[in-house]
Amino acid sequence: NINPQRLWDSLMETAKFGGTAKGGIKRLTLSDEDRQVRDWFKAQCEALGCTVSVDEVGNMFAVRPGRNNELPPIAMGSHLDTQPTGGKFDGVLGVLGALEAMRTLHEQGYETNAPVEIINWTNEEGSRFAPAMLASGVFAGVFTPDYAYERLDRDGISFKDELERIGYRGTEKAGAHKFQAMFELHIEQGPILEDEKTMIGVVTGVQGMRWYEVTVTGQDAHTGATPMYLRKNALLGAARIIEAIDAIGQKHQPGVATVGLIENKPNSRNVVPGEVFFTVDLRHPDEEVLEVMEREFRAALEAALPPMKLAYEEKRIWISPAVKFAPELIECVEHGADKAGFAMRRMVSGAGHDAAYIARVAPTTMIFVPCEGGLSHNEAESTSFDECAAGAQVLLNAVIEHDRR
Amino acid sequence: NINPQRLWDSLMETAKFGGTAKGGIKRLTLSDEDRQVRDWFKAQCEALGCTVSVDEVGNMFAVRPGRNNELPPIAMGSHLDTQPTGGKFDGVLGVLGALEAMRTLHEQGYETNAPVEIINWTNEEGSRFAPAMLASGVFAGVFTPDYAYERLDRDGISFKDELERIGYRGTEKAGAHKFQAMFELHIEQGPILEDEKTMIGVVTGVQGMRWYEVTVTGQDAHTGATPMYLRKNALLGAARIIEAIDAIGQKHQPGVATVGLIENKPNSRNVVPGEVFFTVDLRHPDEEVLEVMEREFRAALEAALPPMKLAYEEKRIWISPAVKFAPELIECVEHGADKAGFAMRRMVSGAGHDAAYIARVAPTTMIFVPCEGGLSHNEAESTSFDECAAGAQVLLNAVIEHDRR
Ligand SMILES: NC(=O)NCCC(=O)O
Ligand SMILES: NC(=O)NCCC(=O)O
Repeated sequence: NINPQRLWDSLMETAKFGGTAKGGIKRLTLSDEDRQVRDWFKAQCEALGCTVSVDEVGNMFAVRPGRNNELPPIAMGSHLDTQPTGGKFDGVLGVLGALEAMRTLHEQGYETNAPVEIINWTNEEGSRFAPAMLASGVFAGVFTPDYAYERLDRDGISFKDELERIGYRGTEKAGAHKFQAMFELHIEQGPILEDEKTMIGVVTGVQGMRWYEVTVTGQDAHTGATPMYLRKNALLGAARIIEAIDAIGQKHQPGVATVGLIENKPNSRNVVPGEVFFTVDLRHPDEEVLEVMEREFRAALEAALPPMKLAYEEKRIWISPAVKFAPELIECVEHGADKAGFAMRRMVSGAGHDAAYIARVAPTTMIFVPCEGGLSHNEAESTSFDECAAGAQVLLNAVIEHDRR
Repeated sequence: NINPQRLWDSLMETAKFGGTAKGGIKRLTLSDEDRQVRDWFKAQCEALGCTVSVDEVGNMFAVRPGRNNELPPIAMGSHLDTQPTGGKFDGVLGVLGALEAMRTLHEQGYETNAPVEIINWTNEEGSRFAPAMLASGVFAGVFTPDYAYERLDRDGISFKDELERIGYRGTEKAGAHKFQAMFELHIEQGPILEDEKTMIGVVTGVQGMRWYEVTVTGQDAHTGATPMYLRKNALLGAARIIEAIDAIGQKHQPGVATVGLIENKPNSRNVVPGEVFFTVDLRHPDEEVLEVMEREFRAALEAALPPMKLAYEEKRIWISPAVKFAPELIECVEHGADKAGFAMRRMVSGAGHDAAYIARVAPTTMIFVPCEGGLSHNEAESTSFDECAAGAQVLLNAVIEHDRR
């Protein structure tokens, strides 16, 4: 059995790397805080006798040998980066839960058949560098390493420069490292488990998601001296699209549709805005409905903007199709939850996860635990001591079960 | 007669202080570029034998003696600061047109009765530090110096620190410097003069204007895992208000209503926005209608936001009531335009100007010249060689006429 206090202490200890006044974490990928938590993680794994390697996009692999080291390892992976106003659990629980499982194996002197490893994937959040799940995507062959290297944050700084700056550009080719299966423990980030008072979500797949970038161009003009009828107000155009996108989400529930990021130019109190950049996030478990949502979004742009004398550019920058996880791993999770005596239910993830890309190259699945109010990507994100412990226990059980089979 | 080429050369020369790739100027108040243009302006005035003084909020006064130096000077004033994506003429023409008038007097050895002076008012734009016309407002007793000192830009840097940093915190008390009248030459910043092919706008007053700040608070949440019905989307709330404000402007034309600045938090592609800050600018020539616009704006906040489970704070941060200029100065302008043979029309300014505050403490008026397409607060702002010259000539004529009377 895992040690819940040790797990909790590690969660609280690492929450200091980028800890915010409101009790959350701001640990954007490839920042100094990301380097700090990576260094800490590496040291902890090495203290357990693991060998830690880093690939060319910064993914970290900490391997504990088994009885038969010809076998590819069984992986437990998630991410240590966070949103700008992120919580203490999103991603972190998956890595530190895995660390706790590893510590338990070590402490008990438990010898697995196959090696067991922990993976920390780079830039899962996609907040600093879009898209999300970038480095697990490179690992799975969805993106080239160069594509990742060229991503720029909103200040124009590249993924590659930052990866080198923090000293985590490894030499191993992304994808060269092999494992036989991956389990990802994560908080649900939605309200279902809490609502149903169920401890464990057995995740059968991930919904489809698409990201877009839109630039609306009007004309900067004086707010006092420019009559209403002469304006080309880019922010007014963007406001109409923000409403249209929300309406698309409302119409296609359980699908969701959101504008999360907006930049207004010149952003001055007495200037009619001349240019607005914003991002769109559309998701649905059914790819066909997602297609319809995309068509409706594009139709909304065309219906709203040209009549307002606004030009626009729209670009789809990311598709992550709906994913189904591996049945044999799902069974290991159910077995593990059962063994630990937790209530469980199957569910589809609304959030994207590294597991969604890894499922393309290895059998993969996920374990969810509740989070208060379904709240995530928020500094107040909260998963209890017991819930964290339950997740780590089921993760360990599932890995052992898979190793036995 | 003024020297149009010399005026134009000075406009182009100073446009380099903060010059942008698109041919505009970014010379935010109290920036390094502002210091550069101030240093240049001071040197030019001193070369004409003027005495340059600076008051406690950075206003600059360059006085050329007259025959009777007991008389208070006749002032010509405007501003050298610009918007973040400003043009080459807004404000600058008023100061450099005055400089050209002064150079002409100097060159001709023309002796005025009263002293004549040029004023460069600090922070007219109000883009970096709200509100606009800040230091002319202090001069006129509308604001205290401390109020000005405490203004913060969006990075939290204070007016006072920046004023000291660029070396333009003078010792003279604001308002202590006396003048008998002020003429402000400015580009129209609207479309009327161009439409009517009229060279000179004789400005009889300035419309009323009010600025507000609004913060909408919802809840950061995951865009993928948060069902539509659980969201508290602050950006969606802001979008509805942006539309409502535009509708208020449309309804009360010739009034105008605008959201110019917006800041979204945490501004991440996969986070439902939890907090949005934006500014509102309402204007109308009739104070009573402006009251109605304000009430409608507040009603729109209340009608839209609480039903979306969004909280908000709204604060009116600035009132600048409608202003009427001095009839005797208006006559001098008409006389001056007539003498130079230019078509003219009376008009009310849609933009705020330092003249609006100065009118409280001295007889004041303004002279407008056309700008292409009525476009201002835009890097493409354009007033022709001939129009700039016409403005400076009428300014000089009006000052001489006033001096004679
Ligand atoms: N789990 C998680 O928050 N992933 C970020 C990618 C996304 O779903 O937007
Ligand atoms: N003239 C001018 O652009 N003034 C700025 C103040 C305003 O917003 O009207």
